[in-house]
Amino acid sequence: MNDTYDVVVRGGTIVTATQSFAADIGIRGERIAALGAALPAGRREIDATGRLVMPGGVDPHAHIEQMSGMGLMNADTFETATRSAAMGGTTSVISFAAQHPGARLKDVVADYGARAERGAMIDHAFHMIVSDPDEIALSEDLPKLIGAGHRSIKIFTTYDKVRLNDRQILNVMACAREYGALVCIHAENDGLIGWAKDRLLAADLTRPVHHSVSHPRLAELEAVERMIRFAEFLDQPIMLFHISTAEAVAAVRAARDRGSPVWAETCPHYLFMTSEVLDKPGIDGAKWMCSPPQRTEVDQEALWHGLALGDLQLVSSDHAPYRFDETGKLSAGEHAPFTKIANGLPGLEVRLPLMFDAMVSNGRYGAEKFVELTSTAAARLYGLQRKGQLVPGADADVTIWDPSRQVTFGENDLNDNVGYNPWVGRTVTGWPTTVLLRGEVIVDEGRFGAQPGSGRFLNRVAEDIVQPTGRPADEARLVQEILS
Amino acid sequence: MNDTYDVVVRGGTIVTATQSFAADIGIRGERIAALGAALPAGRREIDATGRLVMPGGVDPHAHIEQMSGMGLMNADTFETATRSAAMGGTTSVISFAAQHPGARLKDVVADYGARAERGAMIDHAFHMIVSDPDEIALSEDLPKLIGAGHRSIKIFTTYDKVRLNDRQILNVMACAREYGALVCIHAENDGLIGWAKDRLLAADLTRPVHHSVSHPRLAELEAVERMIRFAEFLDQPIMLFHISTAEAVAAVRAARDRGSPVWAETCPHYLFMTSEVLDKPGIDGAKWMCSPPQRTEVDQEALWHGLALGDLQLVSSDHAPYRFDETGKLSAGEHAPFTKIANGLPGLEVRLPLMFDAMVSNGRYGAEKFVELTSTAAARLYGLQRKGQLVPGADADVTIWDPSRQVTFGENDLNDNVGYNPWVGRTVTGWPTTVLLRGEVIVDEGRFGAQPGSGRFLNRVAEDIVQPTGRPADEARLVQEILS
Amino acid sequence: MNDTYDVVVRGGTIVTATQSFAADIGIRGERIAALGAALPAGRREIDATGRLVMPGGVDPHAHIEQMSGMGLMNADTFETATRSAAMGGTTSVISFAAQHPGARLKDVVADYGARAERGAMIDHAFHMIVSDPDEIALSEDLPKLIGAGHRSIKIFTTYDKVRLNDRQILNVMACAREYGALVCIHAENDGLIGWAKDRLLAADLTRPVHHSVSHPRLAELEAVERMIRFAEFLDQPIMLFHISTAEAVAAVRAARDRGSPVWAETCPHYLFMTSEVLDKPGIDGAKWMCSPPQRTEVDQEALWHGLALGDLQLVSSDHAPYRFDETGKLSAGEHAPFTKIANGLPGLEVRLPLMFDAMVSNGRYGAEKFVELTSTAAARLYGLQRKGQLVPGADADVTIWDPSRQVTFGENDLNDNVGYNPWVGRTVTGWPTTVLLRGEVIVDEGRFGAQPGSGRFLNRVAEDIVQPTGRPADEARLVQEILS
Amino acid sequence: MNDTYDVVVRGGTIVTATQSFAADIGIRGERIAALGAALPAGRREIDATGRLVMPGGVDPHAHIEQMSGMGLMNADTFETATRSAAMGGTTSVISFAAQHPGARLKDVVADYGARAERGAMIDHAFHMIVSDPDEIALSEDLPKLIGAGHRSIKIFTTYDKVRLNDRQILNVMACAREYGALVCIHAENDGLIGWAKDRLLAADLTRPVHHSVSHPRLAELEAVERMIRFAEFLDQPIMLFHISTAEAVAAVRAARDRGSPVWAETCPHYLFMTSEVLDKPGIDGAKWMCSPPQRTEVDQEALWHGLALGDLQLVSSDHAPYRFDETGKLSAGEHAPFTKIANGLPGLEVRLPLMFDAMVSNGRYGAEKFVELTSTAAARLYGLQRKGQLVPGADADVTIWDPSRQVTFGENDLNDNVGYNPWVGRTVTGWPTTVLLRGEVIVDEGRFGAQPGSGRFLNRVAEDIVQPTGRPADEARLVQEILS
Repeated sequence: MNDTYDVVVRGGTIVTATQSFAADIGIRGERIAALGAALPAGRREIDATGRLVMPGGVDPHAHIEQMSGMGLMNADTFETATRSAAMGGTTSVISFAAQHPGARLKDVVADYGARAERGAMIDHAFHMIVSDPDEIALSEDLPKLIGAGHRSIKIFTTYDKVRLNDRQILNVMACAREYGALVCIHAENDGLIGWAKDRLLAADLTRPVHHSVSHPRLAELEAVERMIRFAEFLDQPIMLFHISTAEAVAAVRAARDRGSPVWAETCPHYLFMTSEVLDKPGIDGAKWMCSPPQRTEVDQEALWHGLALGDLQLVSSDHAPYRFDETGKLSAGEHAPFTKIANGLPGLEVRLPLMFDAMVSNGRYGAEKFVELTSTAAARLYGLQRKGQLVPGADADVTIWDPSRQVTFGENDLNDNVGYNPWVGRTVTGWPTTVLLRGEVIVDEGRFGAQPGSGRFLNRVAEDIVQPTGRPADEARLVQEILS
Repeated sequence: MNDTYDVVVRGGTIVTATQSFAADIGIRGERIAALGAALPAGRREIDATGRLVMPGGVDPHAHIEQMSGMGLMNADTFETATRSAAMGGTTSVISFAAQHPGARLKDVVADYGARAERGAMIDHAFHMIVSDPDEIALSEDLPKLIGAGHRSIKIFTTYDKVRLNDRQILNVMACAREYGALVCIHAENDGLIGWAKDRLLAADLTRPVHHSVSHPRLAELEAVERMIRFAEFLDQPIMLFHISTAEAVAAVRAARDRGSPVWAETCPHYLFMTSEVLDKPGIDGAKWMCSPPQRTEVDQEALWHGLALGDLQLVSSDHAPYRFDETGKLSAGEHAPFTKIANGLPGLEVRLPLMFDAMVSNGRYGAEKFVELTSTAAARLYGLQRKGQLVPGADADVTIWDPSRQVTFGENDLNDNVGYNPWVGRTVTGWPTTVLLRGEVIVDEGRFGAQPGSGRFLNRVAEDIVQPTGRPADEARLVQEILS
Repeated sequence: MNDTYDVVVRGGTIVTATQSFAADIGIRGERIAALGAALPAGRREIDATGRLVMPGGVDPHAHIEQMSGMGLMNADTFETATRSAAMGGTTSVISFAAQHPGARLKDVVADYGARAERGAMIDHAFHMIVSDPDEIALSEDLPKLIGAGHRSIKIFTTYDKVRLNDRQILNVMACAREYGALVCIHAENDGLIGWAKDRLLAADLTRPVHHSVSHPRLAELEAVERMIRFAEFLDQPIMLFHISTAEAVAAVRAARDRGSPVWAETCPHYLFMTSEVLDKPGIDGAKWMCSPPQRTEVDQEALWHGLALGDLQLVSSDHAPYRFDETGKLSAGEHAPFTKIANGLPGLEVRLPLMFDAMVSNGRYGAEKFVELTSTAAARLYGLQRKGQLVPGADADVTIWDPSRQVTFGENDLNDNVGYNPWVGRTVTGWPTTVLLRGEVIVDEGRFGAQPGSGRFLNRVAEDIVQPTGRPADEARLVQEILS
Repeated sequence: MNDTYDVVVRGGTIVTATQSFAADIGIRGERIAALGAALPAGRREIDATGRLVMPGGVDPHAHIEQMSGMGLMNADTFETATRSAAMGGTTSVISFAAQHPGARLKDVVADYGARAERGAMIDHAFHMIVSDPDEIALSEDLPKLIGAGHRSIKIFTTYDKVRLNDRQILNVMACAREYGALVCIHAENDGLIGWAKDRLLAADLTRPVHHSVSHPRLAELEAVERMIRFAEFLDQPIMLFHISTAEAVAAVRAARDRGSPVWAETCPHYLFMTSEVLDKPGIDGAKWMCSPPQRTEVDQEALWHGLALGDLQLVSSDHAPYRFDETGKLSAGEHAPFTKIANGLPGLEVRLPLMFDAMVSNGRYGAEKFVELTSTAAARLYGLQRKGQLVPGADADVTIWDPSRQVTFGENDLNDNVGYNPWVGRTVTGWPTTVLLRGEVIVDEGRFGAQPGSGRFLNRVAEDIVQPTGRPADEARLVQEILS
């Protein structure tokens, strides 16, 4: 029998999505070989005494090396983004392969794949953004790409260049249903946003703070309700991205109560910020602009309760990195109206510390639930085998936390390429000090040590992602039946 | 004091929306002068002994002399349609002034108005169908037309030539809010219908019975939910036309429970028919094709319960007359797919007898509720002053019913120009025998006696139609506030 | 033909539950003979120019000459109570025939009937309070009394001497179902109230303000939910008395949405007061003590919305008259704990002016809805034929309002025998100046003019009260079926 | 370092509440020491090749050596009951220490404890049944017993000798809140049951099949709603036992949606049986009588959906063993009415195989969810440290399943003392073949091998059971505040 380990993480308290217990982790190669008390010595010993040992974070929502709808390349390469993620305790990320209208989806995915292969330093997969679901995309590219392990699609109900109309959305969903992919959705009603923007611009109300007025709460609610109905019609699983309002939480809950194949996430900036962050002098509020915008404290509580009950299943970063300069947020100048300012916040690195502080240090729902929301659930729902868990046979993706370390965020202290930290001034307790990716120490007591390209593409199979219920709406079933 | 009457309706049982009582009606000129026991003799005496005396019916939803979206003129002129209505006990009708894209709305309304003035034999008003809400329509024509008494607008969320997108709908609603008009909506999701149609046609499933599959229940529900959200956003009163499903009733109820300015109607073909009527040999089912399609018995019960609780407020005919020949339903031939067949049923004449039979003769909710649903509520909600009531000062629009007369509908026994009766074979108990319009006897024991042009346009004022709540959504209010 | 009237109310604006219109009322004997413009002169002419002419108020919830649970006789006789009611525009009242344990119900009803016959100056009926539903009550007295026209029963879920346990409640409901009576309920959970009282008394927290703490909101909600379940089980119509909380409104709404035979009322002190009225120096707050207690402004809005949607159907006074002296509120002394203070407010006289002020003068839902809530609905639901309406054949119960008269309530300006006015200092606009009962002027421009005993008992028949749905719960139906 | 194990379970697939993975389990003493691939040899090796290795079952609801309300001792001793449990794969059980009115609770618990200590062969704890919450119980016995680790209380809302009234229930809940115990509830409305029983008995409808009629669905729903309100009032966590109806599931869901401290369980006989089991010739249906009774297939689906969404958290046996002879079900003779027949089914042994068959073999929600519902959740909610999990440091309670073994239940093939198997004829796939309790093999390939008394009492601490939310109802908070 095999009685030695390559690495032993010794003396820590292991936390999984369901239990906390004192044990060592023995690693052989890329996998966890054993959990146990007093394991035999490993070739490398990592002392985790007094530390919490958790599965590496899984962030299923990040924009990396992606061209925005406005034609603006975001600030991070796979190299800078995954370095930032790793330094924040995250070892797997799903970013986007974004089709722009006219492009062949298979080329888009190949291009993003090549770039990730060169740059990524943590493991990765893609949601395919479909902006042009023409016949070739639906009948050729998507079936092949899904079959090749790209088991998630992202669509938009708003934004001029990428939004799909209802019939297109249904076509994409039907395709996903047939070949086995999850459909992720940015759900806000384009008409409500447009109506508000028109009037704000006409009245010269164009500062960042007006951005939040231009994205009505009801815009999120309406689109969430509509997407749920489409999911119910086709019985196609959907993941509602970045839920921000109490009303949308209630709509998701109602859908799940009636058995619909609906999942949802939220993000730290909805749990910890309100729209007041946008109300800064001049254009400064632009740093915090994202879509949907931050909301109110009542919404924060509703989001937490949704997470507690399982109506929302996970917390992602929606990392959308733009520098606060002419290459990013200020590309249209310092006096640009909010409609010309790129939307998004960096989040890959801060997601876990912010959530750890709230959940573990301050006790909201506890450490196990923290692991569930930030790692285990994402791996399970998106079909990332061997991720998000600490059991023998799983990938040895391990994040070691110092639960007592306090960090106050600075102006520009993140390891991405964004140049500002939207959480400046906030103090968190608990910090990821050491991170292992498939057995390799990529962050060692705060020192980064991985090589570009060391991350690996995560192929996914249909059985591992969330499944339809088997009960489409009557008419959809009739249509399918008479067709087949 | 004035002690004689032009007409006395004597000896009947008067039924209003709240009470039944034995009394005579004394009429002077066009108005009711008195209700009372043993009124003095009138110049004309109408014996109503053993009869029920009710306000003339108000039908707020009928297509008359209107070009369909397919470019097909419907079968009825104002003359034939209003003759049919009167013979069925109805004395006021609201039909449509239908803008086709490109036409100036003011011209459209003028044209319909002229035709109604020439032909109509009962009183009438128009819902303005807006299919092209451009700048002129929104800032010039609609404000003027609304100000001229056209206090209701109709919009579509489906049908190629007339449907509006979400931003257009919001623009129309905002205009209606500003100038004081009710917005009526044909609410079905165009994407779901299109998705289903594409697949049915591709599979050569094109018979009338497939029409009902092509209009999914969820298409109605989704659009109803979306329109409710828009109404809530702008705090603009809406009337949801021809609700057909239990789910949509529940959505309306939920909206009203939370205080939203939402009203809704249904029609006899949803209360008394199921989609089985479409399943006939060959193209025969086309006679019963309408949109939304008939549904199930469960839906029928839900619609009745919605009417009982006040979630739905009224029952209209949605009279949409097409002959079953090459000028109408068969314009694309006997082998046309369902997508090429005009949608609609005649209903102006049968609406009241069908409802009377169910509610008065068979006792469902009683005679007062029958009057409420078919006359009083429509007059009140749509701002038809002096209609739908039997009190001194009201227009002397009176329908006298023989509660014991039984009629079995025949193949072609209606007084419209449609040429078939979709209710053939059905027997109803109770029939309107004599009808007065503003004091004139226009139907006398079944004999029609009015002249074309004797109907009158019903000017409406803002105060008389249903009102906003004063509570738009936060962002809409913010937008309005900062604009004003 | 008969062309003269005993009385003509001339020149006013008549307001019914559905319409307002200018007309005279012609009265012959006790009944309305005609409504009309310019009616012939009556033997007596009442000038109503500039006035609103409405059906006399119907107050279905008042305690008159009744012994309280504490053994305290309340302050009003039928004479003083009905004088007060009439002066406030009310012409019909339903008070209680209250069984105390051990008494034969038939004797109780006979006794109250005799006293009402002697004293009452408006028309009247009784709810029978059943506190001892033994075999004789259930199988003998109740069947006979219901058959004799006493078509409503009142039960309590709290108060030591009168509350019934669940099985007793079911027995009473089953009896009511069999013989055709409505069951009215004071619904508050006795255990929750007791639990709170125990602890408050133990802590010497005994001032009137603690009374509201001792009647938890959840006590109302729980009992309302439970009574609804019983009503659903047996399919027995119930009327939930004096709803005070938003949560209970929602529970009633939910029940009605699912088709349950549930009705509910509220009272002016819940619509216009909050529990702050109880927080006065010393024992002064006792003047405002009632059960359930006044709540919050949020509850007020919920109650109004419930009235608007029809979830609550009417507004009663719950007149419960106790003097603020040793014969009433202070019977246990000036330092008595709240548990020893009689509960109740006078309300017969102020109910209509308070509601008129809010609804007609201040426009909340309008004059027609005011008539519906305070007169017509009560007559309809409780089976008071010929009451609550102004149509030929109805009883000539007419209240004439001066809509511009302003009244500021004083310390002791009511015509009951209570000695204080809980609404002191409040100004209302609109006042009932003249009142007719069955054609007799009992209040003439503010001067009272009726004789004791002139009021009449209102016999009621089963068909006129609210009806079961015909759908008891499965097991209740099974039990009935196998029994029959 | 310690490199040998007392026992190694080798070569199996470990299944926890969240993951399945191939690994060995190394055990030292009573605890799990390691999970890993190819662990070093143990002193004892157990071959689990091809087997599923799961945490031992935790059954938190079983009646053992308990006197029924009718005064009937049930059929199992701790010895027979725990033998049966172990043979079915269960290693921990919570049974009852049942106070009969008049008995001192501390004596009751001591007595049950002594008997369990002597007989039990698996680990165990008690729910204290409180039937007489007098001053001594509330202020002395319960505080001490809770402090001594008896962290759960059971109360009844029905059954003559044990049911508490509402105020008593609130007193017990308040005591539990103060000292930190979970309150478990048999929730059925006693009045509804009594009403139905009275009528059934009067009509001589007394067969076992009438038992289900006598326990109306609404009796469960009403009591569930009431208990939820009490839990909300005091913010006291409750566990609703043996939920059987779809309506009750919905009530629990609604409570949890609004954040209430409410948990719930169901049992195999509600998931797999309907009330048809009671409809047998003669008294034979008595074998299946339990309370609440089995319901319908619609309820089964609702219960499963509740388990899927987490509204119900676990599945217990409600083992209630009575022999089908004169010592048990037939104690009142073969012609006894259903009211004289002891209620209950044996379930300790079959619970896991039935659930395994449905969830693992037939795939409903999967093996991990099976572990969650039958072991992990119960340990977590009830505060059984080190139970329900397979991690280093946990008790080595391990059940090894042969997933392919098929068993068809026989007439009398269980290891309890009941004498019949209510599941006779049903075939399940998957069987627990070997069971370890704290490292000891107590079932070895189907051979039982434990000694009476080898089970151990499970002391529980407040922090480990489910917690209040910190938000009692306003009035309860006010009462507490002013008291403290």
